Amino acid sequence: MSERVKEILSWYGSDNPGTLTNLARLLGHGALAGTGRLVILPVDQGFEHGPGRSFAMNPAAYDPRYHFQLAIEAGCNAYAAPLGFLEAGAREFAGQLPLILKLNSHDVLLEEKDPAQAITGSVQDAVRLGCAGIGFTIYPGSEHRLAMYSQLRALAEEAKQRGLAVVVWSYPRGSGLSKDGETAIDVTAYAAHIAAQLGAHLIKVKLPTAHLEQAAAKKVYEKEGVPIGTLAERVRHVVQSTFDGRRIVIFSGGAADTDEAVFEQVRAIRDGGGFGSIIGRNSFQRKKPDALRFLKTIMDIYSGAKK
Amino acid sequence: MSERVKEILSWYGSDNPGTLTNLARLLGHGALAGTGRLVILPVDQGFEHGPGRSFAMNPAAYDPRYHFQLAIEAGCNAYAAPLGFLEAGAREFAGQLPLILKLNSHDVLLEEKDPAQAITGSVQDAVRLGCAGIGFTIYPGSEHRLAMYSQLRALAEEAKQRGLAVVVWSYPRGSGLSKDGETAIDVTAYAAHIAAQLGAHLIKVKLPTAHLEQAAAKKVYEKEGVPIGTLAERVRHVVQSTFDGRRIVIFSGGAADTDEAVFEQVRAIRDGGGFGSIIGRNSFQRKKPDALRFLKTIMDIYSGAKK
Amino acid sequence: MSERVKEILSWYGSDNPGTLTNLARLLGHGALAGTGRLVILPVDQGFEHGPGRSFAMNPAAYDPRYHFQLAIEAGCNAYAAPLGFLEAGAREFAGQLPLILKLNSHDVLLEEKDPAQAITGSVQDAVRLGCAGIGFTIYPGSEHRLAMYSQLRALAEEAKQRGLAVVVWSYPRGSGLSKDGETAIDVTAYAAHIAAQLGAHLIKVKLPTAHLEQAAAKKVYEKEGVPIGTLAERVRHVVQSTFDGRRIVIFSGGAADTDEAVFEQVRAIRDGGGFGSIIGRNSFQRKKPDALRFLKTIMDIYSGAKK
Amino acid sequence: MSERVKEILSWYGSDNPGTLTNLARLLGHGALAGTGRLVILPVDQGFEHGPGRSFAMNPAAYDPRYHFQLAIEAGCNAYAAPLGFLEAGAREFAGQLPLILKLNSHDVLLEEKDPAQAITGSVQDAVRLGCAGIGFTIYPGSEHRLAMYSQLRALAEEAKQRGLAVVVWSYPRGSGLSKDGETAIDVTAYAAHIAAQLGAHLIKVKLPTAHLEQAAAKKVYEKEGVPIGTLAERVRHVVQSTFDGRRIVIFSGGAADTDEAVFEQVRAIRDGGGFGSIIGRNSFQRKKPDALRFLKTIMDIYSGAKK
Amino acid sequence: MSERVKEILSWYGSDNPGTLTNLARLLGHGALAGTGRLVILPVDQGFEHGPGRSFAMNPAAYDPRYHFQLAIEAGCNAYAAPLGFLEAGAREFAGQLPLILKLNSHDVLLEEKDPAQAITGSVQDAVRLGCAGIGFTIYPGSEHRLAMYSQLRALAEEAKQRGLAVVVWSYPRGSGLSKDGETAIDVTAYAAHIAAQLGAHLIKVKLPTAHLEQAAAKKVYEKEGVPIGTLAERVRHVVQSTFDGRRIVIFSGGAADTDEAVFEQVRAIRDGGGFGSIIGRNSFQRKKPDALRFLKTIMDIYSGAKK
Repeated sequence: MSERVKEILSWYGSDNPGTLTNLARLLGHGALAGTGRLVILPVDQGFEHGPGRSFAMNPAAYDPRYHFQLAIEAGCNAYAAPLGFLEAGAREFAGQLPLILKLNSHDVLLEEKDPAQAITGSVQDAVRLGCAGIGFTIYPGSEHRLAMYSQLRALAEEAKQRGLAVVVWSYPRGSGLSKDGETAIDVTAYAAHIAAQLGAHLIKVKLPTAHLEQAAAKKVYEKEGVPIGTLAERVRHVVQSTFDGRRIVIFSGGAADTDEAVFEQVRAIRDGGGFGSIIGRNSFQRKKPDALRFLKTIMDIYSGAKK
Repeated sequence: MSERVKEILSWYGSDNPGTLTNLARLLGHGALAGTGRLVILPVDQGFEHGPGRSFAMNPAAYDPRYHFQLAIEAGCNAYAAPLGFLEAGAREFAGQLPLILKLNSHDVLLEEKDPAQAITGSVQDAVRLGCAGIGFTIYPGSEHRLAMYSQLRALAEEAKQRGLAVVVWSYPRGSGLSKDGETAIDVTAYAAHIAAQLGAHLIKVKLPTAHLEQAAAKKVYEKEGVPIGTLAERVRHVVQSTFDGRRIVIFSGGAADTDEAVFEQVRAIRDGGGFGSIIGRNSFQRKKPDALRFLKTIMDIYSGAKK
Repeated sequence: MSERVKEILSWYGSDNPGTLTNLARLLGHGALAGTGRLVILPVDQGFEHGPGRSFAMNPAAYDPRYHFQLAIEAGCNAYAAPLGFLEAGAREFAGQLPLILKLNSHDVLLEEKDPAQAITGSVQDAVRLGCAGIGFTIYPGSEHRLAMYSQLRALAEEAKQRGLAVVVWSYPRGSGLSKDGETAIDVTAYAAHIAAQLGAHLIKVKLPTAHLEQAAAKKVYEKEGVPIGTLAERVRHVVQSTFDGRRIVIFSGGAADTDEAVFEQVRAIRDGGGFGSIIGRNSFQRKKPDALRFLKTIMDIYSGAKK
Repeated sequence: MSERVKEILSWYGSDNPGTLTNLARLLGHGALAGTGRLVILPVDQGFEHGPGRSFAMNPAAYDPRYHFQLAIEAGCNAYAAPLGFLEAGAREFAGQLPLILKLNSHDVLLEEKDPAQAITGSVQDAVRLGCAGIGFTIYPGSEHRLAMYSQLRALAEEAKQRGLAVVVWSYPRGSGLSKDGETAIDVTAYAAHIAAQLGAHLIKVKLPTAHLEQAAAKKVYEKEGVPIGTLAERVRHVVQSTFDGRRIVIFSGGAADTDEAVFEQVRAIRDGGGFGSIIGRNSFQRKKPDALRFLKTIMDIYSGAKK
Repeated sequence: MSERVKEILSWYGSDNPGTLTNLARLLGHGALAGTGRLVILPVDQGFEHGPGRSFAMNPAAYDPRYHFQLAIEAGCNAYAAPLGFLEAGAREFAGQLPLILKLNSHDVLLEEKDPAQAITGSVQDAVRLGCAGIGFTIYPGSEHRLAMYSQLRALAEEAKQRGLAVVVWSYPRGSGLSKDGETAIDVTAYAAHIAAQLGAHLIKVKLPTAHLEQAAAKKVYEKEGVPIGTLAERVRHVVQSTFDGRRIVIFSGGAADTDEAVFEQVRAIRDGGGFGSIIGRNSFQRKKPDALRFLKTIMDIYSGAKK
């Protein structure tokens, strides 16, 4: 095991060897094995946006096996998906890469001002499917957030007892926030901190903008001169806000028109001390050879093989 | 066991042998045994619409035994009904055909904008009645959908542990959708996909129209040129949206004025790669000899005995 | 055991011998033993309407023992009451007649548009009090009906496991219905059918009027010419709607100004194939000798001793 | 054991010997031991109204031990209080008098139209603190009443299984009632009856006025000429309404300006067949010697030592 | 063990030796060991206000280990924090100081008129992390308060069974109170009393003002001449209201512009018989040497080393 991985594991002193083993599996798999960086393939878009919107541009991706194969071939650290998608390939690809079972999901067949999610999987499902961890989404800013935190807590406790890693998607949404506020730097840092306080091992947030949403926060950021001007600085602030870098924080892309723009974001994540990326639509919504090239470039940036 | 059934079973790699055995029972019973096609008789209309509206036109159907007999004589793959109807015949017809216990039900004594269902049976009920599977309805589009997904998930987990098959009626309804949207092709495909993600083995949706309900979906369908012009194309798209055809999807009829129109729909299901039909009112709301002829024609179309 | 009772028990093929034994106790006790007809004494009016409104006209009835004695002396098949009333006499009258513990109750200290009931007893209470069955009220038409169905289902499953009979009071009420609709023939038949689908062994509804409440039902009733002109015809339709007569359905009186009017109703129930009556206020709100005469007449009509 | 206590215990034929033992402890302790009458000291005012409003006029009463001592010295049958107050003295005064743990409580830091209470103790708490019984408040008339009845039922079942007595404070409140209606004779009798139907062994209501709240009740009371003119008559009606006197009903004072007015109420309770009083504020909100004299007079009236 | 600690433990006669041991750990650790006074370091501001607002002015505090070290070096009696912060240091600092796991938390990403909190930890979490106690916040005055009391009760029962101490943050908030009312003396005393009645061993309230919020309380305070003019008098009244001083009550600072103002508050707490302080933002939002000096002065005031 690399020194970096040993160092990262040392941050999780309250976890049992089973959970550390699964964290080591996530950090030790794929093209970035041992670097302390991760690129994870998540495919919950079918549930979140509908199958047509998700897969029509690359129909091979309708097949659940496609995503296992893509993640394996690209050398991703893990593949994360809801119950159905994992059940449809877990036996065929057993042991070939770490899996993360998303335990809650949401669709857009009804638009809510304050969204919640349905519980769509159990810790026992994750165990029987051979997963390394569970995934769970919270919506800080929604009037349902307190219930979601409580659900996460209970599932995380059970997952940890059973030696699984806990991965939290922390997505600010809801009536407590403006549209811009959902990706504001203060809100993003706050969302990452909450996930860490709830016991997450690995936290996924969106890349933040320089917007400051909350007046009381804005006052402090400005008074203390917290550097948030560049994307790398903002990544650094989020990492700092997540137990001073002692929790794994990864990022999903903001709006990016070109591949080069994505790579630029990845460089900012790398330079800001972020631990990696979760790359969904940008990978499975293009043909596989293109996706593999695209993901390789990202991994090369993280590994240092590429500037 | 036919090669086709073996192939279908191979899609369910995460299920235990008990559940595979019950899936095999469903696929191996009746006139379509071994073809990979299914015609299922569902009789929940008494609960859903009231006994008079359901049975007055064929009073023999007030008797719960009638439906067991009809399904057996017609060679249906299975008979699905709520608790009371199954309890009233399960001993007399034990072992004569696979049964599916509907675990939730709804009535129309109060009309809601956002409908839900009552839990009206348990997995243990299904076990004690000798059923091959459980049935459950979800209403994507209703504000209660997230709670319904969560209920289904818990019941499906228990059913799978106990070796039963999970059959999901996925009916888009509620304030998130227009009336036309309930059978729109994008919404129908989405509803089938959600059911599959929730772990359903067998999914029942309504035959879709060419309407596109959601603006974001419409944009993609049009850009990618997803073929949805004919009913067979739409069936094919729904099947594709359900794990690229690796889950069993069956259809209930849209509005059909004549038997010939129904047969035309069945041909479209067959040609589009659908797995069969669920035929309720069209079978038990006519005299039995007529119903048997009607169902035979449908089965012949599916088996290829008839064009 | 009479042939008729054997026949009735044969309808409950999914129940265990314990439950059949208790159904046999209900059918085998009192003046109508063995006839397949039942007259049950229910006394929940103290809870439902208040003690003064219920008992002031016959103060002996304030004493819970009075109702046990009345039911025994009159030869009723069973006595049904809430927890407190049964606890107050179950030891003294142990084994003297079948008891039914009402598991939910409602008061009128607050009037709701959509009523519900409180759970006021448990299956374990019924067992420890030596009851033959549990009783439960549902309000089809209320916005709480789905929750009530789900409660009933869970309690019924437990009761059946423990060998008890399940008696359901199905009373249409709530914002889904007009005042007239609560006793409409279509609604009453629907309410009885729902109770049967929920697994009830014995169903109690109000005597229906010829009113048709739901437009979709009205259309079918008129098209099919369902006979509902006389009370006996309406009873017959309700019995038919309840699994074609293969579930026990009993009736409570509609508005009746005179005893003779009640007897006329009883004749209609008998002639329409109903299984009997549940007679509350009309029995305990008069002096005991008068009540015994009144109940004897009713039982004589059912047994055929009297026309 | 006195004959009167034996007689009272005979009313509870469905309870186990453990519960009878604790009822006997309540009836057999203190100055009124064996008389079948009870005076209970309740001290939940600190929670219900705040400590300053409750104890500032007699600061010794801030100390939880004060109330144990007062109840012991006065010869009360029992002392009832919430968890904290009992925990603070249960060891020191173990075995010196019967205790009743209030399992729910309410504060006035928010005024609600339809009040509820928080669950603030468990049956297991009552057992570990050596209590003879549990206490529970219901608010007939509140929109939360059905939930409160259901909570009480579950706790009462557990308490009876564990050999404890069940004491219910039945306080009509909420949007179903006018202010006058909260102490109306029809409503008070109804509230006591509901508590008895829910399985209470001992019921506490407020002294009723001659007001009749509900039109349907008023009609019956007037038609039947129920005597409610004097306080003693109203007490008698409440006792009658509670299983014809076969449940223990005690009363708390109505508004009383002078001690003599309280004594007059006590005489009415005694003469009307009531079982005693629950005396809170009138006892601990004055200096102890005064309180002891006051309580002695009340007990003398109940025992007959004083007219 | 000091006589004072023995005296304090004697107040908790209903607790098991395990809980007494943990109370003794809290009272026997740090600079104030044995004095019966406590200074506790709480760090939940990251969750409550966001990481930037909490730590940007002293970035070392982003690291969860910082707070363990600060509490140890300062000689605090205990360190209290949510799950994530404790998990991140519990192994490294095991046995070095008593820990309190906050079991519920709240964020400000949505402002509610009637706030609640999410359950964010379990009693089992507290046990596995080696904590001496659990912490829980209630909001008397919020429409969610009854649910919060019920949650606290259940968790406290479990904690006591497992030998942990129960620490309650009682913060009046919500639509039942004016802004001034949140720190009014009557409301603060009431809030402390409620926490004690719910079974808290140690209660934390805010320093009260002389404002009287509730009319009914104001009347009594004025009539009885309760002394509330000085801060020390108000502290004394709160201590008296909490079982006449037989429960441990500590205070957090009111608004204080200067350190000297804080010290003045501490002297008032000491002189009023308060048991100590909980010092959060004032300690970790300055550089460590400064914080250590600041906390030493406070402890010296409590110990008497400093006037």
